[in-house]
Amino acid sequence: MLTNDQLSQWDRENFFHPSTHLAQFARGEMDNRIVTGGSGVHIEDRDGNRLLDAFAGLYCVNVGYGRTEISDAIAKQAKELAYYHSYVGHGTEASITLSKMIIDRAPKNMSKVYYGLSGSDANETNIKLVWYYNNVLGRPEKKKIISRWRGYHGSGLMTGSLTGLELFHKKFDLPLTQVIHTDAPYYYRREDLSLSEEEFTRQCAENLDALIQKEGPDTVAAFIGEPVLGTGGLVPPPTGYWEAIQAVLKKYDILLIADEVVTGFGRLGTMFGSDHYGIEADIITSAKGLTSAYAPLSASIVSKKVWKVLEQGTDEFGAIGHGWTYSAHPICAAAGVANLKLIDSMGLVANAGEIGHYFKNAMTDALSGHPNVGDVRGEGLMLAVELVKDKDTRAFLDTSLLSGAKVATALLKRGVIARAMPQGDILGFAPPLCLTKGEADTIVGAMSEAVREVFDNA
Amino acid sequence: MLTNDQLSQWDRENFFHPSTHLAQFARGEMDNRIVTGGSGVHIEDRDGNRLLDAFAGLYCVNVGYGRTEISDAIAKQAKELAYYHSYVGHGTEASITLSKMIIDRAPKNMSKVYYGLSGSDANETNIKLVWYYNNVLGRPEKKKIISRWRGYHGSGLMTGSLTGLELFHKKFDLPLTQVIHTDAPYYYRREDLSLSEEEFTRQCAENLDALIQKEGPDTVAAFIGEPVLGTGGLVPPPTGYWEAIQAVLKKYDILLIADEVVTGFGRLGTMFGSDHYGIEADIITSAKGLTSAYAPLSASIVSKKVWKVLEQGTDEFGAIGHGWTYSAHPICAAAGVANLKLIDSMGLVANAGEIGHYFKNAMTDALSGHPNVGDVRGEGLMLAVELVKDKDTRAFLDTSLLSGAKVATALLKRGVIARAMPQGDILGFAPPLCLTKGEADTIVGAMSEAVREVFDNA
Repeated sequence: MLTNDQLSQWDRENFFHPSTHLAQFARGEMDNRIVTGGSGVHIEDRDGNRLLDAFAGLYCVNVGYGRTEISDAIAKQAKELAYYHSYVGHGTEASITLSKMIIDRAPKNMSKVYYGLSGSDANETNIKLVWYYNNVLGRPEKKKIISRWRGYHGSGLMTGSLTGLELFHKKFDLPLTQVIHTDAPYYYRREDLSLSEEEFTRQCAENLDALIQKEGPDTVAAFIGEPVLGTGGLVPPPTGYWEAIQAVLKKYDILLIADEVVTGFGRLGTMFGSDHYGIEADIITSAKGLTSAYAPLSASIVSKKVWKVLEQGTDEFGAIGHGWTYSAHPICAAAGVANLKLIDSMGLVANAGEIGHYFKNAMTDALSGHPNVGDVRGEGLMLAVELVKDKDTRAFLDTSLLSGAKVATALLKRGVIARAMPQGDILGFAPPLCLTKGEADTIVGAMSEAVREVFDNA
Repeated sequence: MLTNDQLSQWDRENFFHPSTHLAQFARGEMDNRIVTGGSGVHIEDRDGNRLLDAFAGLYCVNVGYGRTEISDAIAKQAKELAYYHSYVGHGTEASITLSKMIIDRAPKNMSKVYYGLSGSDANETNIKLVWYYNNVLGRPEKKKIISRWRGYHGSGLMTGSLTGLELFHKKFDLPLTQVIHTDAPYYYRREDLSLSEEEFTRQCAENLDALIQKEGPDTVAAFIGEPVLGTGGLVPPPTGYWEAIQAVLKKYDILLIADEVVTGFGRLGTMFGSDHYGIEADIITSAKGLTSAYAPLSASIVSKKVWKVLEQGTDEFGAIGHGWTYSAHPICAAAGVANLKLIDSMGLVANAGEIGHYFKNAMTDALSGHPNVGDVRGEGLMLAVELVKDKDTRAFLDTSLLSGAKVATALLKRGVIARAMPQGDILGFAPPLCLTKGEADTIVGAMSEAVREVFDNA
């Protein structure tokens, strides 16, 4: 076995880690962590630490770690047939079965599943399909995409453009010109504090309508949004939001892409976030929860309405010019089948709803009285604690204090992993959907101590 | 076990296959194929067929099918730890070891490895890095990317733009404006037949120089190319091509991205195509051969020169805003480690060179005399047979005859899978690197019969 020192050296010399301060890492000025195993909501590392992962990797290990039902399915598929492509009507029992299982679980208006590897590539596919759709329909000018500030839809060039966070635009010349942003449905951070949730919803819808009018309805192809904002701050929408937004989109014949990479397959206590909020999407993006990250897989779930036009397109122009080598990869599809079965057999969708409710109440009870806790919010097993300088004015903390990161570090010291979100001092929690009340209590207890350590001793 | 009929019905009702005529597939007007297993260069399907896969999936199953060394490594990793992310300095023994193994095998000027899932997403990363690089260096206008007609670099919005094939642009509003195309290094299809290879090379370099001058050298960031054109027709470059092109790029301080998704890890009989042609790239794209497709994994291999600027960037602007959830996925990294070991222990790099040479000679001997075979070309285990209407004038066949597709069908009837390439009547062969002389003879024999069946009985 390699020594930890040897591995650490190789790590710093050869490995370009994502979302990392590259220079500090290469110089050894920040820690690395070599993860070795996991079980349920816990991971273990080579230094002997056992940590409660309250962010489920990157909100993706929904069934929890160490599920042999999935690892056995992967092993079996790898032995039988690790790979064949799915171009021109090729498939495997796993990829076909998974397609059927997804459509059975998706909202009723859904028709077909296109597979990719990541949420980013699925949204890339979606924009290609939307442009193709309007070309088939003879509307070559209808191409702009509206996204929301604080939305997260990936980190490619187009998908990073859809994302409405500064970190992903800065120094990358994004967003691309085809993407326009509208209001974040972020009630806590509304400008006019006098607005009720319903009034704020109306404002979001009116601003969207005005934006479409300004751009020209014939130039706007689609609107993309997460049912609950994820990386932008884990923010559930204000009351009535999706109903109001959908009314505007219908008026101008604009497609709706529901990005359910985080919310798909149970996180909100319903199979899809679309079920939770009455969203009738034209395309649904799925990834993380589809395999609980046991293997890389994403899905663009296409509605009957869109599929009909895609069929018309191939009748007119021939085979569609879109394909990934690893679309519907057999091992990833096998992981998906085993994962969706496990979600059902473990009752995780209902558990996410029940424990999510308990978790939010417990966090609210423990922390909402603290002078630097501005907001505790969540839906299902997505929970955020937003830190502020002043509770009454909702003033932001000085960013140079790195308060969110400090609280995450204080939590880690107590054996709990949460995520300091990239914009604002927001602690995000999105644990595996198998979380128990006892584990929720552990997280809340650690968070309570961590917040007090950072602020009350400052 | 599900019946074939039941699976076929689910397939047509739920599964959106890539690169497929969607309407014909849904209506049952074209076959599907449900693949069940494989061994060496052969795959098997549920209808009991055993086929010699002379395209290695999509030129990716380089070690061949059914290698238990890799499937066992996948099974072991899946059981120990199927997933943890690699953000902010996290890793696994597999991902760190693989990084070291890649850098050990890559050209000497390479420094670090960023992981994605597919060749498309790796090139997406590369363009982001190139833009970031020039922003760090204070050259905000230096952003255009030059690609070649007939290049293949992916099928996303940016990567499909880099691709220089009509099928991937048509009806998708591509290429994006940041991408410009220059000559395909396609000697057989040169306009002026009187040119020698050396003269054609000079023409390609001069045209590139003129294009850069026209666009403005300060606006051109990078040039991307495959050492040997892949999906554009499996075309080795003319004599002296890469030397001449690199001289032009150096003159204008333009980065070179070598897209080695197909050629990386042995296909040309050298570890990288860059070794084969003396290419000193700034970034190398890798995917397919990295895992032999046993699990989805890609790599952007970054040179010391680029890495230094990325470090400077994070020192100035903080952590880099780029990350995929499944970057360095443990199972995929474990597959990569086992695959690279197997390539070494089986001696596949040398075998690709030796058998490639034998294969090309045998195909040339068997087919070059046929009046409809215009060109037999190749390098290592990439081989193309280009069909023409008239050998002397090199006139194209009428595209409505679908001659390439018909030859592929006639080959399939004889148990051999080749690929009718998307632009031109070109049959592509890129078998697993473990191909034997006997298997090469089988392919050549079948191809010889197939060409005669399609043309001589027409």
